[in-house]
Amino acid sequence: MAKQLTSRKEDYSKWYNELVIKADLAEHSAVRGCMVIKPYGFAIWEKMKAQLDKRFKATGHQNAAFPLLIPKSFFAKEAKHVEGFALESAVVTHYRLKNQGDGNIVVDPDAKLEEELIIRPTSETIIWNTYKNWIQSYRDLPILINQWANVMRWEMRTRLFLRTAEFFWQEGHTAHATKEEAMEEAKLMQKEYADFMEGYIAVPVIRGTKSESERFAGAEETFTCEGLMQDGKALQMGTSHFLGQNFAKAFDVKFQTKEGTLEHVWATSWGVSTRMMGALVMAHSDDEGLILPPKLAPIHVGMVPIYKNEEQLNQIREKFQHIGAQLSNANITFKIDDDDAKRPGFKFAEFELKGIPVRLGLGPRDMENGTIEVARRDTKEKSSQPIENIATHIEGLLKEIQTSIYKKADDFRKANTTTVSSYDELKEVVDQGGFAVANWDGSTETEDKVKEETKATIRCIPNEGGEADGDCLVSGKAGKHKVLYAKAY
Amino acid sequence: MAKQLTSRKEDYSKWYNELVIKADLAEHSAVRGCMVIKPYGFAIWEKMKAQLDKRFKATGHQNAAFPLLIPKSFFAKEAKHVEGFALESAVVTHYRLKNQGDGNIVVDPDAKLEEELIIRPTSETIIWNTYKNWIQSYRDLPILINQWANVMRWEMRTRLFLRTAEFFWQEGHTAHATKEEAMEEAKLMQKEYADFMEGYIAVPVIRGTKSESERFAGAEETFTCEGLMQDGKALQMGTSHFLGQNFAKAFDVKFQTKEGTLEHVWATSWGVSTRMMGALVMAHSDDEGLILPPKLAPIHVGMVPIYKNEEQLNQIREKFQHIGAQLSNANITFKIDDDDAKRPGFKFAEFELKGIPVRLGLGPRDMENGTIEVARRDTKEKSSQPIENIATHIEGLLKEIQTSIYKKADDFRKANTTTVSSYDELKEVVDQGGFAVANWDGSTETEDKVKEETKATIRCIPNEGGEADGDCLVSGKAGKHKVLYAKAY
Repeated sequence: MAKQLTSRKEDYSKWYNELVIKADLAEHSAVRGCMVIKPYGFAIWEKMKAQLDKRFKATGHQNAAFPLLIPKSFFAKEAKHVEGFALESAVVTHYRLKNQGDGNIVVDPDAKLEEELIIRPTSETIIWNTYKNWIQSYRDLPILINQWANVMRWEMRTRLFLRTAEFFWQEGHTAHATKEEAMEEAKLMQKEYADFMEGYIAVPVIRGTKSESERFAGAEETFTCEGLMQDGKALQMGTSHFLGQNFAKAFDVKFQTKEGTLEHVWATSWGVSTRMMGALVMAHSDDEGLILPPKLAPIHVGMVPIYKNEEQLNQIREKFQHIGAQLSNANITFKIDDDDAKRPGFKFAEFELKGIPVRLGLGPRDMENGTIEVARRDTKEKSSQPIENIATHIEGLLKEIQTSIYKKADDFRKANTTTVSSYDELKEVVDQGGFAVANWDGSTETEDKVKEETKATIRCIPNEGGEADGDCLVSGKAGKHKVLYAKAY
Repeated sequence: MAKQLTSRKEDYSKWYNELVIKADLAEHSAVRGCMVIKPYGFAIWEKMKAQLDKRFKATGHQNAAFPLLIPKSFFAKEAKHVEGFALESAVVTHYRLKNQGDGNIVVDPDAKLEEELIIRPTSETIIWNTYKNWIQSYRDLPILINQWANVMRWEMRTRLFLRTAEFFWQEGHTAHATKEEAMEEAKLMQKEYADFMEGYIAVPVIRGTKSESERFAGAEETFTCEGLMQDGKALQMGTSHFLGQNFAKAFDVKFQTKEGTLEHVWATSWGVSTRMMGALVMAHSDDEGLILPPKLAPIHVGMVPIYKNEEQLNQIREKFQHIGAQLSNANITFKIDDDDAKRPGFKFAEFELKGIPVRLGLGPRDMENGTIEVARRDTKEKSSQPIENIATHIEGLLKEIQTSIYKKADDFRKANTTTVSSYDELKEVVDQGGFAVANWDGSTETEDKVKEETKATIRCIPNEGGEADGDCLVSGKAGKHKVLYAKAY
């Protein structure tokens, strides 16, 4: 079990794919690019969802559900939007199958739709078409709605969680009476996302805005949360968009102001997806398996009995159940692995692969001494602890692990963020992996040139420290912003 | 506000449609047959989901996610299954749009899929294709998985919640080593469903099995929960299926038994959907609006201040906030409507329309007397109560309302369940509305004849009292089961 994974050093990408599958998070399905999220992976996703959902509701949002399918003509209404999504649209053209008579099941040519329907890649168009009927006056605003949904983007090169044809996400869609209020909303959701990513996924994120060419198709400003993975590549973990009046204009959504005038409504949209599962895996895990922050771990404590005979096993099992009851009282989840067919070493490796934050080992000698072996998954430190009040010890330890995992990722991010002073240095940094901080002239030409020559993109103009303090390293022109360049997923 | 709804007596069907829309539960979308579930409706659905999810987990099930799309060939593998769903399948044939150059967006003919994909109408086929890789030995069993998902059945005549092209549901899919275990599982989930429906939706349900012709396409036995709506029509509220080895055979899923032999796996599947929202509305509500059982009501208490001036309003609002704090402590949700632009009568009607179980009215005279007016939505009873400890009173009242709503529905069901002694009487009963209990010879011929002549179907062979005690009323042949006939949604 222990040596099953390709090491990160050997092949980071292969390590990731193997880990996602072997740790029972997800697997490829029979449908190209679509994944099956297995129960263990889904339990982590459910924890993410629960926490995010709580934050959305605490900030005044309500959940709703909009159709999976979108009429083709809706897409065409916002020019940039259709351009952004046309090439990856799954299209429904028929609504019936039939038996040819010979047992062959074929699409019934008589059941062709008058207008083709697209499986939503995102829902701005169908939602703004709906909001048109909901909004007449300033009294109807703001509308603060979120939906948890599956979406489909027909990607040609897919990777589990990071880029799949079907993926799971939430999409917030809000409508406001003023530009300022919409802008505040978009920024607020960036903050909620970032706080969640740092506090729960334990990944520090750079909060910033996207350059024009990296914006969401139809947005006037895109706020992003950028994480750094262990291979030095950046990962966009979530975005929040200020959409201006673009969708309100495309769908003719106007409201009567307090003053009696008619104006177009201001909009935002924001989303995070199962992609965060990929970030979770890539930011923390090691060659032995997952390392899960306790706040998202489905099982906090794995217990392994060390015994030579049935009598010992029974005594140890009883002790574990006693500890388990104490843990449950503190909302700590556990699993006792008393499968007689597996050796302790095998069980250790299995718990490591699954990223269970704390492992307890208990044998007859420990029982005599009133001690228990406590092993941390993240640092692999082991210690012998008094068995009395062990639940309290574990409670503290889980908090420490959560903090420690974040700190490690934060140290890594800091060590791999370099302010560069020449284009050559920029190339070197992004090639080795990490963020290169540099002044940028603000032009798409420069951005494209860097992308072509280094494969790095501008990840964002950071909210803090984004002011230029010198000339653009690439063009030599006056700097407009100080930005972060990196290769990215 | 109060007189906005068509009455049930005038046009039950119209009343239902109007109520669903006016109470802000759901509305039709721009996509034929697909609905938008609005925040108020979705909040009820979320409460249903939370309670069901808890029950699934308590009985050992885990959530997972399987693909939205299913290869066409998978359907063809189980003959009855494809027959059951072929006529209502939404088919994805292309994966790209393109701009014709003139701004017209068309389906790109070069992006035709080699094999068409069906939007899942249910997931047995894709899931059993997956289980094939998960199951080798008896040690891999049972598999107890559920998914919360959207599904698509291209219905020609749709009604909000009751029958929509896209709907939301959960589908459990379990795999077992023995027939007995699978059968037990299917029965257990019927029990969980029925307990939830009675305990939360407050609708009494008949627990029974379906006749062969009414079974799920691919099932060997279908267990059902049948509710009775106020118009005397039955509604199938949830089903649980014993699938035998049909899907294991279709997808070649075998396991090694403890004894070392190879056998096909036994299966169940079970689902409840947003259709339950329709049952909730139709079973309890009246001509003034929704009547919601407190356990599913998003807002338990609506508060309306009665005042003549700003000073009075401030005093009353303060009192309401004080009461609200006490209610929150007891997990009771509330809304204070202090909108100065609306009159109290309008607010009363609005709370009635939304089915808020308890309404509080408070005016200056009440304040002086230390009393408050408490109105029940279900019975419309009003009483003046001491304002002190009002939260405790409301807590008890909400429990009473939950029980009372159930009892009313149960009395209605009993009053509309008639054991009939002739075919003529059967016709009369189902025509007036309600369940007709009668002996049945067990033949599809008789079933079809009754269906053709009366539009009633056999809703189920009830778990209790399903033994025949005489000849079939229709054919005169020996009775095989005692069944419930009714017209149904």
